[in-house]
Formats: sequence, structure tokens, C-alpha cells
Amino acid sequence: MKLAELARASGLSRATIKYYLREDLLPPGEYVTATQAEYDESHLQRLRLVRALIQVGRVPVASAREVLRALEDESLDHNSRLGTAVWALPHGPESAEDGSTLEARRTVGALLERLGWEHTQGYGEESPAYRMLVTAVTTLHRLGYPCAVEDLAPYARAGHQLAVSDLDLIERYESPDRQLEAAVALTVLYEPVLLSLRRIAQAEESNRRFGQGSARE
Amino acid sequence: MKLAELARASGLSRATIKYYLREDLLPPGEYVTATQAEYDESHLQRLRLVRALIQVGRVPVASAREVLRALEDESLDHNSRLGTAVWALPHGPESAEDGSTLEARRTVGALLERLGWEHTQGYGEESPAYRMLVTAVTTLHRLGYPCAVEDLAPYARAGHQLAVSDLDLIERYESPDRQLEAAVALTVLYEPVLLSLRRIAQAEESNRRFGQGSARE
Repeated sequence: MKLAELARASGLSRATIKYYLREDLLPPGEYVTATQAEYDESHLQRLRLVRALIQVGRVPVASAREVLRALEDESLDHNSRLGTAVWALPHGPESAEDGSTLEARRTVGALLERLGWEHTQGYGEESPAYRMLVTAVTTLHRLGYPCAVEDLAPYARAGHQLAVSDLDLIERYESPDRQLEAAVALTVLYEPVLLSLRRIAQAEESNRRFGQGSARE
Repeated sequence: MKLAELARASGLSRATIKYYLREDLLPPGEYVTATQAEYDESHLQRLRLVRALIQVGRVPVASAREVLRALEDESLDHNSRLGTAVWALPHGPESAEDGSTLEARRTVGALLERLGWEHTQGYGEESPAYRMLVTAVTTLHRLGYPCAVEDLAPYARAGHQLAVSDLDLIERYESPDRQLEAAVALTVLYEPVLLSLRRIAQAEESNRRFGQGSARE
């Protein structure tokens, strides 16, 4: 298909697609004449992922390029490509090291040990997700909110159930490439689903515990 | 305590505290002389919450003011104050209405009915969290990713477990005021904990399913 058709099919403007081409987020089409390129289904699929990352996940262009590069790295096996791609997804700012950070590292280490998450203990301790967790626990510690191993454990158990649901969704896709794309896109796109469902459930649970007509009144 | 002591105890600069006073995020101290105000424990506690909202949760100043106002609204009962405060927490941008939005609204309605979340069905359908969920499902729908009721149900079940953990943490605080403050702060501060644990658990689960030495190899 031509650029105009790709724009129509993807719901993106031609200017946006040209920008993604310039930024190396979308591979070039095949030139059929000196000025006209032909695009195919793989371009449409890639645009879907780029849009999920940039427009929905607010991933900076440089990080998106890194994620996409990991997806295409033929030197890595499927699991490593998946890990690297999700690894490159951005995370929050990190905090300066102090006593709270040391305490948080100890807590997170003890938590992972209790959960038996060996992969992370062995390889993932410097991953962005691990550092994001240490930063979050550091902040809780500094502000004096509950953040002991037993406070965090229920959140980790919920996190594991979510990961099982995530991987079940991802395994519905047959080709490894589609699985990789889905892993990155669904990690980002399901974050607001999860956070909003948590807040809605909080209102339900709060109403059950404190609301008019609750058992305690 | 004087401003300098409040700054030391809170870990914030005097300039930041003065800014929070000007922006009505912190109630004024009691003036003991024309130029010197005296602050107490309640100011320190309030600063902790303001810092959680603004510096960690990246809540805009105007929204933070709205959250704090809800916490102090004596005309509301405890459950309503809690709801209003969390309600005022910011959420993502909303998407323009189209066929996908209608489809998403139907899906979310069916999901809540299946879960038996009656409070939300009755009162919360226009809450920010509900709209955030509709927006997220709309995006999944537009991009062609799985977002049927049975795809979302496991995330809602995890959301409910999280809410139970949240309320358990909140109920550890004895006074209603501290509970309200903790509800707002922990909602914001546990978001990165949850999202990072999900990503770490994804790596664990992915390694279990696809990694070297996994059952499938």
C-alpha cells in the first residue's frame, strides 16, 4: 500500500508517519519508483506498536527506538529479546542514595528471597523495574509509610498474578514477533487498566467497610 | 516549632515551605510575633502528604489543593471524604468519543456487573477512575489488543485484592484524619511499587515459560 493508504489504515496522519520514518521508528518502505514507496502489513503492525509506546505509554522517542531495536535483535533468544524490550521501557526518576535507600535495598532483597524470585535475584537486580521498586520503597521509608517485607508481600503476590495474566494474553499470539510486540504494548497499555481498577475497587471496599449500611455502623 | 525547624524536620527547604503556604497547601502557623509563626506536628504531617502528592505523585498544585480541601470538608462523612479525596487525584487524558468508546463503555459496564461492584455502578460511573478505565479500554480496542470482559476480569480481581491490602494498611492508622491522609498518600506511593513488581514478575514468569531450562524446551 502507498503512504496515503498506510495513513488511512493506521489512523495516523502522513506527517506523523513521515516523522516516525525519519526517527527510525518505522523501517522504510520498498521504493517502487524514485519517489513512491510501498508499505505492507508489517508496517501497519509496527505503527500500532509505536503508537502504543509513544502516544499511550508516553515513552520518549529515544527509548522507543531502543525497545524496537531489542525486538529486532536476532542475536538474542526469544526470552532475552522480550526481557530487553520491556527492560528498555522507561521508569520513574531515581532517588539519591542514603540510609533509606540501603534499607529499601535490604527490604526488596528479602522480599524477592521470600517470594523465591530467583531470576531477578540472579540477573535482574540492576534492571529498571528493580531500581524503580527500590526508589518507590525508599520514598515510602523516607516519608514514614508502611514498607516492610510483610507490607509489600501482598502487592508482590498481586504482581505475580498480573504477570501470569499478561503472559497468557501474550501467548495467544502465535509468531514470536507478534508476542514480543504484544508484550511491550500490553505492559504499557494495561498499566492504566490496572491502576484505575485498583481505585474503583478501593471505592467498593471502602464503601463496604465504612459506608452507610456497612456492617460496622 | 519555627519555620527553620519545620524545614529541618520535614527535609524541605524554607523556600518550598513558603511556596506551599502561599499556594494554600499548608495552613498558616500561629503568629507569636508580627513576623514569626509557630508550627506544630499537624504542619509536619501535612507537609508529608503534600510532598507525597506533588513530588512523588506529580499531582498538579491545583489538584492537590482540591484533594486537601476534600480531606478537610467537615460536611462529609468519613467514607465520602475518602472517596472525594482519591476522586480528585489526577488521571490520564481522556479520548474523544467514537465507536470504540461506546464499545469500551459496554465492556466496562458488563465487567462491573459481573464483579458485582454495585457501588461503582450506582455512584461511580462518572468518577475519574471509571473514565480512566474507559479510556484505557478504548485505546486497547482501537489498537486491536485483547480487551473483552474475560480478558479484563483477572486484572479486576487483582485490583480488588490490592484494594483489600490498601484498606488494611489504611486501617492501621487510628484517627480518621490520619486514615484519609494515608489513603491518598498510599494510593499514589504504591502505584510504582505495584507497576515495578508486575514487571519483575513478568520477567520471572517469562523465564519460567520461555527461558533456557524451561519445561517447554
